[in-house]
Amino acid sequence: MPHKISEIARVIGGIVIGDENLEIMGIADIQQAREGEITFLANNRYRKYLKETAASAVIVPIDITEGEGKTLIQTDDPYFAFMKAVRFFYPEEPLIESGVHSTALIGEGTELGEDVSIGCYAVIGRNCRIGKGSKILPHAVISDRVKIGTSCLIHSNVNIRERVEIGSRVIIHNGAVIGSDGFGFAPKDGIYHKIPQVGTVVIEDDVEIGANCTIDRATLGETRIKKGVKLDNLIQVGHNCTIGENTVIAAQAGLSGSTHIGKGVRVGGQVGFAGHMKIGDGAMIGAQSGVSKSVPPGVMMFGYPAKPRMEEFRLQAAIKKLPDLLQEIKDLKKQIKVLEQRVVKKNVD
Amino acid sequence: MPHKISEIARVIGGIVIGDENLEIMGIADIQQAREGEITFLANNRYRKYLKETAASAVIVPIDITEGEGKTLIQTDDPYFAFMKAVRFFYPEEPLIESGVHSTALIGEGTELGEDVSIGCYAVIGRNCRIGKGSKILPHAVISDRVKIGTSCLIHSNVNIRERVEIGSRVIIHNGAVIGSDGFGFAPKDGIYHKIPQVGTVVIEDDVEIGANCTIDRATLGETRIKKGVKLDNLIQVGHNCTIGENTVIAAQAGLSGSTHIGKGVRVGGQVGFAGHMKIGDGAMIGAQSGVSKSVPPGVMMFGYPAKPRMEEFRLQAAIKKLPDLLQEIKDLKKQIKVLEQRVVKKNVD
Amino acid sequence: MPHKISEIARVIGGIVIGDENLEIMGIADIQQAREGEITFLANNRYRKYLKETAASAVIVPIDITEGEGKTLIQTDDPYFAFMKAVRFFYPEEPLIESGVHSTALIGEGTELGEDVSIGCYAVIGRNCRIGKGSKILPHAVISDRVKIGTSCLIHSNVNIRERVEIGSRVIIHNGAVIGSDGFGFAPKDGIYHKIPQVGTVVIEDDVEIGANCTIDRATLGETRIKKGVKLDNLIQVGHNCTIGENTVIAAQAGLSGSTHIGKGVRVGGQVGFAGHMKIGDGAMIGAQSGVSKSVPPGVMMFGYPAKPRMEEFRLQAAIKKLPDLLQEIKDLKKQIKVLEQRVVKKNVD
Repeated sequence: MPHKISEIARVIGGIVIGDENLEIMGIADIQQAREGEITFLANNRYRKYLKETAASAVIVPIDITEGEGKTLIQTDDPYFAFMKAVRFFYPEEPLIESGVHSTALIGEGTELGEDVSIGCYAVIGRNCRIGKGSKILPHAVISDRVKIGTSCLIHSNVNIRERVEIGSRVIIHNGAVIGSDGFGFAPKDGIYHKIPQVGTVVIEDDVEIGANCTIDRATLGETRIKKGVKLDNLIQVGHNCTIGENTVIAAQAGLSGSTHIGKGVRVGGQVGFAGHMKIGDGAMIGAQSGVSKSVPPGVMMFGYPAKPRMEEFRLQAAIKKLPDLLQEIKDLKKQIKVLEQRVVKKNVD
Repeated sequence: MPHKISEIARVIGGIVIGDENLEIMGIADIQQAREGEITFLANNRYRKYLKETAASAVIVPIDITEGEGKTLIQTDDPYFAFMKAVRFFYPEEPLIESGVHSTALIGEGTELGEDVSIGCYAVIGRNCRIGKGSKILPHAVISDRVKIGTSCLIHSNVNIRERVEIGSRVIIHNGAVIGSDGFGFAPKDGIYHKIPQVGTVVIEDDVEIGANCTIDRATLGETRIKKGVKLDNLIQVGHNCTIGENTVIAAQAGLSGSTHIGKGVRVGGQVGFAGHMKIGDGAMIGAQSGVSKSVPPGVMMFGYPAKPRMEEFRLQAAIKKLPDLLQEIKDLKKQIKVLEQRVVKKNVD
Repeated sequence: MPHKISEIARVIGGIVIGDENLEIMGIADIQQAREGEITFLANNRYRKYLKETAASAVIVPIDITEGEGKTLIQTDDPYFAFMKAVRFFYPEEPLIESGVHSTALIGEGTELGEDVSIGCYAVIGRNCRIGKGSKILPHAVISDRVKIGTSCLIHSNVNIRERVEIGSRVIIHNGAVIGSDGFGFAPKDGIYHKIPQVGTVVIEDDVEIGANCTIDRATLGETRIKKGVKLDNLIQVGHNCTIGENTVIAAQAGLSGSTHIGKGVRVGGQVGFAGHMKIGDGAMIGAQSGVSKSVPPGVMMFGYPAKPRMEEFRLQAAIKKLPDLLQEIKDLKKQIKVLEQRVVKKNVD
């Protein structure tokens, strides 16, 4: 549905420079945008795209005042303004009808807050508490004594095991498993005996957990994912891990048992943590790294095994020279041999 | 159930050389096959297995005319003939009864084609279209406005999110999630704000998606998996990726957002792609590689970080020599010291 | 709930040294334990923790007789005694009510043993057999002709495909898929044709399979996971693999088709096996290794590509010296040049 640019500017809180009556048909990234669409330019550095884009309108920072023929909307934070414009073009879809579906099964002693929605064939155990406005989508399975805060979104096929605690505004994507048994066995005579996994998982406010992630419960005590953490898909979090506030982890990363990650850490995809160690606040771990030792705060780590960034880059650069090096050493050997012969010859002379 | 070899030959389109009345009890690979069973030999190179196998009959190419005591069936393409024979011994099992199960829930405005089967407790949202002959197995969850073509097979516990489009003859295995939110957050003052993920996923004809894969929807626009792509299990496809026609990807590989893979590419297991880059048509990426740069068409890449095959092999070979190299250099140093002393001594003399 | 230490000693089979009437409030690891709690010390080596711990009581081996002010319980095997104490403090929770839930759907010809429990919305196909005391939790989906032994625990959302055979005392965690199609395609003219996957999966007694694992059925024959194997979460087992008795595999490891792992092997997280090879009994594969060749029994392998442990460590150590080595070689070159000039000069003199 088309929107007038003046209306978009009002919604996102910006000032139109150019044709106030321009009709905008859609929204896209600056490289994909077509005529009639609106896009954004995060900062002056990418200014060249302003000329190149086919978009008819561009959301820009306030220091851009001339639009290379495009109509502009000036804002303090073009990226956040763009996000608002996206929501304006694509209003949030109701993922579930309000209320509790007739086929949802809810155990004894479970308390639902106001405006809780529970989808068809969802199952909620006994003595759970689900806070105001939370949405449990079809086919989610929530076991006994689980606590879920307010305004959560639990997608279909999510499984939340007994006694897990979840904060408010948490989003859990399809197929994620929260609270599965930790991987703990005591070997005796070559046979592995299951160690009871009686701890739990605590997920704090504003966490998002990707599709088909697995978050194991603690052996004793808790696995804790702190406020604002964002996990991509297919991530494994072992028993008794902690992940600090506002840490983000990309897809298919894995945390062995008792990995403790600090605040504001960024972890790339397919990274592995060996367990029983600490990753300092603000550290950055490159994709596919294998982290086998604790990492100090703020350090960037790369490689397998993971090393500080500059060390890893130096090594990679050195390794690239290795085949040439082998040749050089051969040459050196020859030169020395020649030298030796000369020196010996002179001695003989 | 035993079958006469003449009947098998008729079914697979081949010519019997030997005992036409031989009863065949089963079918197996050439190394596992036992007496009374039939197997195949893809080509003359593996001819020695013809002697070694315990099988009583072998499907062979037309240039093999003598069976080392086994009865033969000659065909143009022994492997495809073998596949037909397998289907003859193991007729396709009906994975679902025809029709819509009484417990399946189907939303308003959804249209089902002829001969669509929907299993027990499956849930289909509103305004979906499901084409002729498609089978939705028990406990699949399909959200609103999803389109599914003809003759698809959607296994149990598959989740297909809103607005996803799926072509014809697509197979999606258990637990796969199609259309989960892309992993997109805008950091501001150390806090990650969710970027609305309003795009979708398009899966073209003849695609197969493995168990527990996760295919994220695009932030804006679409994630697209083109005709004939085959994905193994537990693969992550990030938002806005494209995978070209007839590309095959092995288990646990991961594509970061906006990875664009060409046609006919082969990707090994556990490979990681760093995102925002292009993999050329016909490229080959070795297992566990970490691909951080675009790859030209037809190139074979290996390693972490991924390098052209010959370069990686040369490096691996050079690295193996490294410990010896360290010793050589020590020796060279000594030789030079000796030489220097001699030269200096002569100077002094 | 508090327990008297004399009661705990009776339950775990140990002897109290100290205050028999001490009330114990909880149980924890030696570093997390607080006052009023009980913990354990596996052996004399960690004796220093006996002094440091805040716990009021400690389960110890019989050679420890003095408790640094703590009350002791002496036992033969402190770890196993501790596990019993954990179960005493946290009695097993009934994960499911006994009996078959009214919403469970059970196909024709399926036989349930005594005391089988089947949860709400679980689906069992036709002609299955489920042994005495097995528990099938809500939303599990079991296809036709599946056999499950006695005392199994099948968690919610597990999918078990047709004809799979499962032994006794097997635990399968949420979202695992057993018996999905093997990844087998025959390429012809650039198009991949599906090879019928008509084999099955056999899981022997006492196996535990983690959340969201995927175990593919064999193309022909069987994929077999032998007695006592323990698999962590998100593991991929390809078609026709075998995993030997009492092997343990950490999260996100992947076995390509026809990987054969021996008995008592330990595999780290995110390891990849290239397929069609053998891993000998008692081998140990370090986390994130890429195993591309068969491994002899008892060998420890590390790295990418995986090499015997000592070789890999030597290489890693040598690689670390590489940047210095480059410098040394530069220096050597200079020295040689100087030498050459001197020698030449002398010749000229």
